[in-house]
Amino acid sequence: MKSIQVGLLGLGTVGTGVVRIIKGHQQDLMSQTGASIEISKILVQDKSKLRDIEVSSELLTEDPRDVIENPEIDIVIEVMGGIELAKGYILEALDRGKHVVTANKDLMALHGQEILAKASEKGCDVLYEASVAGGIPIIRTLVEGFSSDRITKIMGIVNGTTNYILSKMSQEGAAYHDVLKEAQDLGYAESDPTSDVEGFDAARKMTILGTLGFHAHVSLSDVKVRGISQVTKEDIAYGKRLGYEVKLLGIAERQDDYISISVQPTMVKKSHPLASVNGVFNAVYVHGEAVGETMFYGPGAGGMPTATSIVADLVAVVRNLKLGINGQRALAPFKEKKLKTDEQIASKNFILLHVEDKAGVLAQITQVFAQHEVSLESVLQHPNETNPKAEIIIITHDANQAAMKKVLKQFEDMDVVHSIKSVYRVEG
Amino acid sequence: MKSIQVGLLGLGTVGTGVVRIIKGHQQDLMSQTGASIEISKILVQDKSKLRDIEVSSELLTEDPRDVIENPEIDIVIEVMGGIELAKGYILEALDRGKHVVTANKDLMALHGQEILAKASEKGCDVLYEASVAGGIPIIRTLVEGFSSDRITKIMGIVNGTTNYILSKMSQEGAAYHDVLKEAQDLGYAESDPTSDVEGFDAARKMTILGTLGFHAHVSLSDVKVRGISQVTKEDIAYGKRLGYEVKLLGIAERQDDYISISVQPTMVKKSHPLASVNGVFNAVYVHGEAVGETMFYGPGAGGMPTATSIVADLVAVVRNLKLGINGQRALAPFKEKKLKTDEQIASKNFILLHVEDKAGVLAQITQVFAQHEVSLESVLQHPNETNPKAEIIIITHDANQAAMKKVLKQFEDMDVVHSIKSVYRVEG
Repeated sequence: MKSIQVGLLGLGTVGTGVVRIIKGHQQDLMSQTGASIEISKILVQDKSKLRDIEVSSELLTEDPRDVIENPEIDIVIEVMGGIELAKGYILEALDRGKHVVTANKDLMALHGQEILAKASEKGCDVLYEASVAGGIPIIRTLVEGFSSDRITKIMGIVNGTTNYILSKMSQEGAAYHDVLKEAQDLGYAESDPTSDVEGFDAARKMTILGTLGFHAHVSLSDVKVRGISQVTKEDIAYGKRLGYEVKLLGIAERQDDYISISVQPTMVKKSHPLASVNGVFNAVYVHGEAVGETMFYGPGAGGMPTATSIVADLVAVVRNLKLGINGQRALAPFKEKKLKTDEQIASKNFILLHVEDKAGVLAQITQVFAQHEVSLESVLQHPNETNPKAEIIIITHDANQAAMKKVLKQFEDMDVVHSIKSVYRVEG
Repeated sequence: MKSIQVGLLGLGTVGTGVVRIIKGHQQDLMSQTGASIEISKILVQDKSKLRDIEVSSELLTEDPRDVIENPEIDIVIEVMGGIELAKGYILEALDRGKHVVTANKDLMALHGQEILAKASEKGCDVLYEASVAGGIPIIRTLVEGFSSDRITKIMGIVNGTTNYILSKMSQEGAAYHDVLKEAQDLGYAESDPTSDVEGFDAARKMTILGTLGFHAHVSLSDVKVRGISQVTKEDIAYGKRLGYEVKLLGIAERQDDYISISVQPTMVKKSHPLASVNGVFNAVYVHGEAVGETMFYGPGAGGMPTATSIVADLVAVVRNLKLGINGQRALAPFKEKKLKTDEQIASKNFILLHVEDKAGVLAQITQVFAQHEVSLESVLQHPNETNPKAEIIIITHDANQAAMKKVLKQFEDMDVVHSIKSVYRVEG
């Protein structure tokens, strides 16, 4: 078999990892695929830039056409990021019959359907394992490992930055802004952290996981998103006292054929396997009707872990090339998407209220829940003995979101409720 | 495409789960594979036996030839267990061009090489995801998810019975024999528990994982095995006090091209993700050069979880049938097996000694370690204040097994050492 020529779009941290693995594991990759894999061109923004890796200057180009229009190149690896430019290059590469491996979650979440349709039309592979949870092979697991099962729930810690921040806040009792600052100094958070801390990055990944897990085209706009910027150290401390850790969870659920997808800070019971996933690690919990509870844990980002997933996809494309089956193993979503209404989305809830400190208030509060048929698991009055404010923490049993909205609306209108300090979904 | 005919060998708990999934998920399996999947024959020992599942009596047979010699049948699912009989049936089925899915770890550990060679010769698939860690798709993960990486370490809690026993001993401070009895009453342990508690079952699974992870033919005889029957509640209590949980770990390691595989009760640091895997759950920790630390967690046994893996394999075989590539995706081990010597196998160790209670003993003990160049991480004298016996717990830094054997041999010969109560490998 002739050697396989690979073109790279981008040579940042992940691209550098890809070059390292392809060069360093040449013999193993040959044994795995029966072919030698060569990098023939790498698109960079600035050829003269100093790099962490030694790459022959002939490999580098600043002209994308040297990769996507290069007739020698069989497979294009896109690790440049961004949306419009990357999309154009990928579609162009597919049009020319090249297979594509990408780590671009933003692109796949927003335009995955269009890209995969083009790939199918052209008989090309598009693989994107690295787009979700870096080094964890979660896409393969959903698509192949659980092909026989009906997945009912996917819960993911799929953003390392926010998990780092929440873990630190929990471990050190530190405030959000202090830890964010520290994460920025360490390079774990961007100078503009919005995409991470407001949950948008996690939402994109959940769009991909939801589509694959439920076999229906989930759009980014289907995901209800709330970030962690309002999580206080008091919330985390109360959670801990009651046996919970606050985690930013992406939650995709299915009941019958109705699905819901959200991203939100969640009180996770300490006995749940997700509760002990700390720092920049990612984990995806998958519940299937037949298999029950499973969890997949590993590094969610980083050059080498992400490159592992990219090169595993590359190996898969090369194996397909050898078998002559490119573009034939992808499975398009085959179910109609039906979204749950607020009445259908149920969960336990954690509510912290500041209330007037006088007799009868608790009765008034619990009465509101009863009125909307929300039953309570526990009620804790004055949870903080050193704090003179009258505080009440309520944990509900499963309650639907429509009822919860009515309850909270009513609290807003009650004089004895000074403020609704926080509301969290509860899991585990 | 014509409908795919499946024959089952066995209709116990797992076989029943397979029938449930194939029947219950008919429409989804059709969407997944583009083919309808029908069960045409099931080999049972006694057709008249009452069963948990409604199966047409015409499907049942007591004659294996109705399955393995049946020209209608495309795929044989072996869930009968046992070795010689199952091996004969599988080889016969392969000879007749049938593809095989099996959950039989004993068979694959002992005769996998022969069976896979026959499959390759006949252009047939043999898939065996269910043979290790039930519902966790760990074989796919090793073979495809990490195809790009060099796996350096696999540590598995791959036997649910022993993990149940050790978890209970840890949680309740109970003694081994009491918990074993309870596990037997609950059906979590066999009436003859030898294969589980002495580590043989785990060793077979590690043979399979080691072969796949290291791409070398690992034999069962390469696995050094020690079970949990000598683990005492005192050991577990001391471990807890020092921040460890005792787990029966299968450990497969590679350094350069040298490998070692073992099964043994191990002190696992509480912060390690394996330490909190409790009850009958399984988990496999995989460390790769590029990916770093990952872990895969889920149900290790049970009818439905195991059936999930079997039917996922069935889906893969049917997809291969559709693409005409059966027997072409398997990758035979391509590396020579080189086993580490005792000098090359290193780990931390936990040692509990009963010693004479007099001055200078500790100096004598530590002198022995120094003499064999084993350095110590910590030494705890009289760890149990309520116990008048002079006890010493030592935790070593990484030490090779040859040196450790010399140290222990010397303790045996020392008058001041009354007994070497326990020795554990330490991880995490």
